Amino acid sequence: MSIKIGILGYGNLGKGVECGIRQNPDMELAAVFTRRDPSGVSILTEGVPVCRIDDAEQWADKIDVMILCGGSATDLPEQTPKFARMFNVIDSFDTHARIPEHFANVDAAAKEGGKVGIISVGWDPGMFSLNRLYANAILPDGKDYTFWGKGVSQGHSDAVRRIEGVKDAKQYTIPVEAALEAVRNGENPELTTRQKHTRECFVVLEEGADAAKVEKEIKEMPNYFSDYDTTVHFISEEELRRDHSGIPHGGFVLRSGKTGLNGENSHLIEYSLKLDSNPEFTSSVLLAYARAAYRLSQEGQSGCKTVFDIAPAYLISKSGEEIRKTML
Amino acid sequence: MSIKIGILGYGNLGKGVECGIRQNPDMELAAVFTRRDPSGVSILTEGVPVCRIDDAEQWADKIDVMILCGGSATDLPEQTPKFARMFNVIDSFDTHARIPEHFANVDAAAKEGGKVGIISVGWDPGMFSLNRLYANAILPDGKDYTFWGKGVSQGHSDAVRRIEGVKDAKQYTIPVEAALEAVRNGENPELTTRQKHTRECFVVLEEGADAAKVEKEIKEMPNYFSDYDTTVHFISEEELRRDHSGIPHGGFVLRSGKTGLNGENSHLIEYSLKLDSNPEFTSSVLLAYARAAYRLSQEGQSGCKTVFDIAPAYLISKSGEEIRKTML
Repeated sequence: MSIKIGILGYGNLGKGVECGIRQNPDMELAAVFTRRDPSGVSILTEGVPVCRIDDAEQWADKIDVMILCGGSATDLPEQTPKFARMFNVIDSFDTHARIPEHFANVDAAAKEGGKVGIISVGWDPGMFSLNRLYANAILPDGKDYTFWGKGVSQGHSDAVRRIEGVKDAKQYTIPVEAALEAVRNGENPELTTRQKHTRECFVVLEEGADAAKVEKEIKEMPNYFSDYDTTVHFISEEELRRDHSGIPHGGFVLRSGKTGLNGENSHLIEYSLKLDSNPEFTSSVLLAYARAAYRLSQEGQSGCKTVFDIAPAYLISKSGEEIRKTML
Repeated sequence: MSIKIGILGYGNLGKGVECGIRQNPDMELAAVFTRRDPSGVSILTEGVPVCRIDDAEQWADKIDVMILCGGSATDLPEQTPKFARMFNVIDSFDTHARIPEHFANVDAAAKEGGKVGIISVGWDPGMFSLNRLYANAILPDGKDYTFWGKGVSQGHSDAVRRIEGVKDAKQYTIPVEAALEAVRNGENPELTTRQKHTRECFVVLEEGADAAKVEKEIKEMPNYFSDYDTTVHFISEEELRRDHSGIPHGGFVLRSGKTGLNGENSHLIEYSLKLDSNPEFTSSVLLAYARAAYRLSQEGQSGCKTVFDIAPAYLISKSGEEIRKTML
């Protein structure tokens, strides 16, 4: 008997979940829910219905875990608590500052419905958070570093696209190799924003736009670019499509710490990701935690959880005996 | 109220645990147990008793978690089940092939005593195992690689020391950089033993020993060296002491996998450790899991667990609220 997954929201993340289900023989896609007119949405899996979000309630006993694939700005703060009353839910809520509030809302709703909700699942928050926690628990006397990239930042790409004269654009966040090396060498550097990451923009101009003016506007944009060394390349629409249509991302979580009677020994823990597709990797993490939500719910648990609360064994479709024998 | 830790076995690992306790304000060292004559064992912590292992039983209600710091060959298979009847216990049992048997023995004993036992805690098994599991759960369609080093292998150093004419020796296991790079590039190479690691020996000869004969004997030693490219350096006793007295280690766990409708996107997950002191890092991991054992026991749980069974939040001395706010 496989775990019946519902996908709510069919963008890049929802499609990633759909593809990911095919790699997990213990799961099957039950239905996709969309805000759009279902008749206009065609999905990759044959024989699976596309439904209106408003009809989701009717699926309460036909779906084991609903994966919420909406955005963190406006969708998830409303949707996750709402659907946690009816379904076991997973989301990838990534507005770090608002996690405590979101947790409280989902916790109340999930407990009311007797369901499990796992929030902020993905790689950051998600796998990066886990690695921060493990490393801090192991090396209490140490220093944390997180670097992102090389990867596409959707928010920064959007900010460039909003500039007058810009037809299209893609922005890459790039970790500064020298800063990474200083951390790896145990130098425990204090790093400014500028010292940690650079930004690289590939911009297609509208006809007749003033390149120098656009470049200046990008580089001086507060919050987004002014604290960074930014490089701007002007390219053709064709080049943008050909060379920059992917959504790669990744990054590094490091902790350097000391042990010994007088801190005489240094240690470095490093976790890194190099991802061709940010949304597909996030989807893959969501599915592993969907399995955990299903199992926890079967055990009678309810309420909101994060990756910190889930024992790793719940994530994998193998028995305890098997994983002890083959992976320990 | 702090967690009272007992240390059983006072070698490098036991000393590492003793130092580590000082970095964890929620823990205190209650007593050290040794097979030696306690009057001949001086420890680093003032006012803490050194006792005979045979007297450990009398400490049953004065110790929250006993950390077993003996060896995997003969000590732990006997000690961990024995003491799991009286104490919550943690060990670093690292004979991978015998883990299922050890788990069963500790599980039965711990359940009998109503105690929690966590076995095979450290970095491999331990943190490396966790990373294999997480990466497999996230990327079902992929390939695992583990590389060890650069680091001192105690077993290989011992093997060299047993050769006639060798006064002292140290052996380093070194990952082959080209193999690591091939994995990182997503080439999914099939690697032989020889292609993954090289071995480097630093040997002090007895006076009058035949260097060429010793070198040949090392390089042709089955299991230990014959499947590897091995380099042998002959050095003075003073050089060995000066340059090779540390116990560094580390390594890399990688998984490369594919996602997408047709596996069109590749991903790389990499976890690595660079450790100045193998035993002190292992001790630090043991302490984090001692905290978990204490908490699980407080919750009324019993039986044998591994790192796979422990939710990360149990490892750190901060509340769920705090870690969600600062680490997620």
